[in-house]
Amino acid sequence: MTILCNRIDKDYMMSEELFSQRTTTCGALTRADDGSRVVLNGWVHRNRNHGAVHFINLRDRYGITQVVVDDDASKDLEEIAASLRLEFCIAVTGTVRCRPDAMINSEMATGEIEVKAERIEILSSCPALPFQIDDGTKTKEDLRLKYRYLDLRSQGMQQRMKLRHDFILSIRNYLSARDFYEIETPTLIKSTPEGARDFLVPSRHYPGKFYALPQSPQLFKQILMVGGMDKYFQIARCYRDEDARGDRQLEFTQLDLEMSFVKRDDVLTLMEGLFVHVFKEVMDHDLPPTFRRLTYAEAMNTYGTDKPDLRYDLELEDVADLAARSTFSTFKEIVGNGGFIKAIRAPKSETVDFSRKYITSLEDAAKVYGAHGLAWMKVGEHNTLAGGVSKFFEGLEGEMIERMGASDGDMILMVAHADWKRCCASLSAVRSTLARDLGLIKKGFEFCWIIDFPLFEYNEEGGFWQAAHHMFSMPQQEFLDTLESDPGSVLGDLYDLVLNGYEVASGSIRIHDVELQKRIFRICNFDDETAEQRFGFLLNAFRYSPPPHGGIAPGIDRMVMIMAEETSIHEVIAFPKNTAAVSPMDDSPSEVDQKQLDELHLVIKYPEK
Amino acid sequence: MTILCNRIDKDYMMSEELFSQRTTTCGALTRADDGSRVVLNGWVHRNRNHGAVHFINLRDRYGITQVVVDDDASKDLEEIAASLRLEFCIAVTGTVRCRPDAMINSEMATGEIEVKAERIEILSSCPALPFQIDDGTKTKEDLRLKYRYLDLRSQGMQQRMKLRHDFILSIRNYLSARDFYEIETPTLIKSTPEGARDFLVPSRHYPGKFYALPQSPQLFKQILMVGGMDKYFQIARCYRDEDARGDRQLEFTQLDLEMSFVKRDDVLTLMEGLFVHVFKEVMDHDLPPTFRRLTYAEAMNTYGTDKPDLRYDLELEDVADLAARSTFSTFKEIVGNGGFIKAIRAPKSETVDFSRKYITSLEDAAKVYGAHGLAWMKVGEHNTLAGGVSKFFEGLEGEMIERMGASDGDMILMVAHADWKRCCASLSAVRSTLARDLGLIKKGFEFCWIIDFPLFEYNEEGGFWQAAHHMFSMPQQEFLDTLESDPGSVLGDLYDLVLNGYEVASGSIRIHDVELQKRIFRICNFDDETAEQRFGFLLNAFRYSPPPHGGIAPGIDRMVMIMAEETSIHEVIAFPKNTAAVSPMDDSPSEVDQKQLDELHLVIKYPEK
Repeated sequence: MTILCNRIDKDYMMSEELFSQRTTTCGALTRADDGSRVVLNGWVHRNRNHGAVHFINLRDRYGITQVVVDDDASKDLEEIAASLRLEFCIAVTGTVRCRPDAMINSEMATGEIEVKAERIEILSSCPALPFQIDDGTKTKEDLRLKYRYLDLRSQGMQQRMKLRHDFILSIRNYLSARDFYEIETPTLIKSTPEGARDFLVPSRHYPGKFYALPQSPQLFKQILMVGGMDKYFQIARCYRDEDARGDRQLEFTQLDLEMSFVKRDDVLTLMEGLFVHVFKEVMDHDLPPTFRRLTYAEAMNTYGTDKPDLRYDLELEDVADLAARSTFSTFKEIVGNGGFIKAIRAPKSETVDFSRKYITSLEDAAKVYGAHGLAWMKVGEHNTLAGGVSKFFEGLEGEMIERMGASDGDMILMVAHADWKRCCASLSAVRSTLARDLGLIKKGFEFCWIIDFPLFEYNEEGGFWQAAHHMFSMPQQEFLDTLESDPGSVLGDLYDLVLNGYEVASGSIRIHDVELQKRIFRICNFDDETAEQRFGFLLNAFRYSPPPHGGIAPGIDRMVMIMAEETSIHEVIAFPKNTAAVSPMDDSPSEVDQKQLDELHLVIKYPEK
Repeated sequence: MTILCNRIDKDYMMSEELFSQRTTTCGALTRADDGSRVVLNGWVHRNRNHGAVHFINLRDRYGITQVVVDDDASKDLEEIAASLRLEFCIAVTGTVRCRPDAMINSEMATGEIEVKAERIEILSSCPALPFQIDDGTKTKEDLRLKYRYLDLRSQGMQQRMKLRHDFILSIRNYLSARDFYEIETPTLIKSTPEGARDFLVPSRHYPGKFYALPQSPQLFKQILMVGGMDKYFQIARCYRDEDARGDRQLEFTQLDLEMSFVKRDDVLTLMEGLFVHVFKEVMDHDLPPTFRRLTYAEAMNTYGTDKPDLRYDLELEDVADLAARSTFSTFKEIVGNGGFIKAIRAPKSETVDFSRKYITSLEDAAKVYGAHGLAWMKVGEHNTLAGGVSKFFEGLEGEMIERMGASDGDMILMVAHADWKRCCASLSAVRSTLARDLGLIKKGFEFCWIIDFPLFEYNEEGGFWQAAHHMFSMPQQEFLDTLESDPGSVLGDLYDLVLNGYEVASGSIRIHDVELQKRIFRICNFDDETAEQRFGFLLNAFRYSPPPHGGIAPGIDRMVMIMAEETSIHEVIAFPKNTAAVSPMDDSPSEVDQKQLDELHLVIKYPEK
């Protein structure tokens, strides 16, 4: 028998009779199978020989089984065994036998047995590998993506695909048991650009017209509520033509959900129940039955961000009053002008020395978010402060140390800024850097809700107000009279779910009234005509007795990433695009035939160099 | 209290306190709830008054409950009740009471009770409806689609959305319990047009380059097998830019499935188990444990089609030998030239008179598929034939009648054609017309497998061979030497699943060898260079030890349509495009902003009028 590299040999590889089909998988055999005759199909994971004895670790999705070609093997069998290379796909026929006690591998599910091979068939072969399976992140990502079919064979990718499968299935069953219908909404829809850019799909039949891929099923799920569907969800593919970033993909998956006749807490409670159930079922992890709720203002003031990572404490303190009483003229001036001064305590560390160099690295982190600088003081014994700006706080040491809950060896870090958001965000960056560097991040999953968001945010560039979340969210009732006169102070019936410092879901109670919806459009710089042209079909639907409704949309990719303790969503997507929005495997996007362009009535206008 | 039509009144409609949330649904209350105080939310389904007493049928997704405003109601309540119009969305607070025996409606789940209203809030209102909810197919389809949010409120649409949900969930759970992973494959991929046209998605970052929407995840699921994923499925959105037809949508949903280390029967057996389980779980319908299998040749010869509807018999018979012995020169000539003559028996009918006019209508059906005419003879008493071509069959009456299993009052219909496929197809059209007209179609679900399809079909127009299914299907082993020399006779390891005369799934064992795959490409008119350019990434994957694998892809839309006893897939899709590929609701496809085109480097070239 000769070894065939990717060549069909009729008498050998193609014969139905000769392709021996597995009778079990590589993860199943135990001591109880001793003496059974089995066939295994899989890939050569390791292959080593001790003289004439060959040990082949055969792998499939279910595990690894050791196959042994003994020294009593026929010449043919020995030759085949000797010719096997890593990742050849083979069929092994043989008999299960218990390993001698000394050879038992308790780390392998099948470690008590091995299969004495009687026959080995090479089902397909391969050249030398571009990288070793299971090398994972050691391999350059574009190489992994180009050969994704090899990368997917790694234990990590296989486990993550299983986790993702289990997670989504568990969600579906939980919601289905609670009267939700999963309803598929169209993905060739009208372009209604707002916020991100739409991907367009040219129509062949209607020259100059386009479908768009949905940024989310938002309008359709609201229309489903108008259609009386009551409780809807969908594991939905969504599309945003954004400039690629590390954790963004052109297409992504979200759990899209909407309910009729609900108020905010109905949605929050449902989600808590869902994730408590799913984390238990999928990971055997116990979440608390309810998640902490923080208003946007609380989250910003306490953690400097509306996406606080609660796996560690490190709360921000407002020290404007103390700073105003200090002799530090910069601080005094900022406070005097209505600015903000906040501080964070860096706890004494065994591993990190609070050197000038280290403080500079923290300052650099703060400056990314707009801080002009990072003021610091070291806490010494007996309520003393030293270094940095401490000289300006003479006489205030005790109050400052008490305010910060600090003690000997800690450091106090301060940011002063005229802008509240920048002050908060800069210290949030210091907070997360400290947590990472000082090893303060506990393992686990810390969920929290952020509620009472502002409904609008000011677009500095465009000089108008825009929806902070999206234009379909309900303002809180007490702001209905002042929407137009004071948009900046309007709070919405909005909620975000945050997990370990990532925003993993965003939702709101929706507007279900044409006139109110139009007011929002107008505030967001969409005049009635434009609004009608873009969103007319939603406004039309709202004329026909929509129910009060609300919903939420957790991001699946990001949640699975966090559950898998990964830092890139590429690790939990079978075939992601790279950060340049390209697939190195199939080379998409790519040029197309002129015939295709002609049929679509398109001409390319290449930019001038 | 005044009635507000779609206008937010802060004191009334918007107040969290004043929107009374349902405590139960409109389908839940029974005699056991007598005396309970409840809140219901829903839509006014009917509204009639007997003097000062108002009967309001309140509807939600769960059912209908009768709400009564008694003549002891307050003036405010009576005024609101009188102002309600059909489909207003309201909240009713009241008390459950048993109906008097004479008023019990046993056809309603809640027919034993009614709710005495104490308070009614109008949550939103509507103008007169463009059509009555539940008028279903009586309404023009484009009107239904324009106001799909109203159409979706109908019982029919709600039931079908539930059926679709249940069906897909049941599939997912069955496969997941059998070690399948659902894996999401990308929908922005490389354009590899073959067969249907791809939808293209212009890339903003790469002028002149495009992504394509997948016609199916075919290549990706095969690559998942190379990646060791072993058993994969996906409820996958697929896209084909075809000219619209009644039962085609631009986007459609299929159960996409692939397995490693399998042979044909593994896939067939899995599917049988799946659908037996799902039909039982979803519809409480018992399917046989295995489905009938017909080869392509058998199906064509017996039923004239590779999509036979087995809910009725009416088998075709080959009567070429009898025709050759007749005195009918046309028939004799066709047989003499190697042509085909087939016959079908039209059983005597109580309702249909086999008039000349009726026979002409059958002939018209046959001619659509290429028949030159439809020959006929009526069967009389005592083995006699009369009318039509019977005079040419003198002396052959007994044999003919026996061959056809005919008896007095039946009719024998014959098609003669030089081309086997056309002969078969013409009689198949006669067969299905007869079955419909004679009322022979039994209720139920008749599955069968069609196997042993030809691998190639000749493209008369292009003058080359092309894949009958797709280019990735394995030829049967005995044809490996004659692929190039006699493509027309090659059978593939292909299988279709047919249900009630519709092809509902198509699959094959795949090629997993580079060289064999290239041979197929070449036969299908793709030279090595083109094949490498289009399918290089699959060929690359096949170089790295792919496992033997195969799969199938049942169409979800069509299966649910059949289960719902509908004849258009529009009835089982929430938001379908119409037959002109347009959505009357959102008016997609539509024109887009110049800015969007500029960003995509596109210029429209309008066709000359």
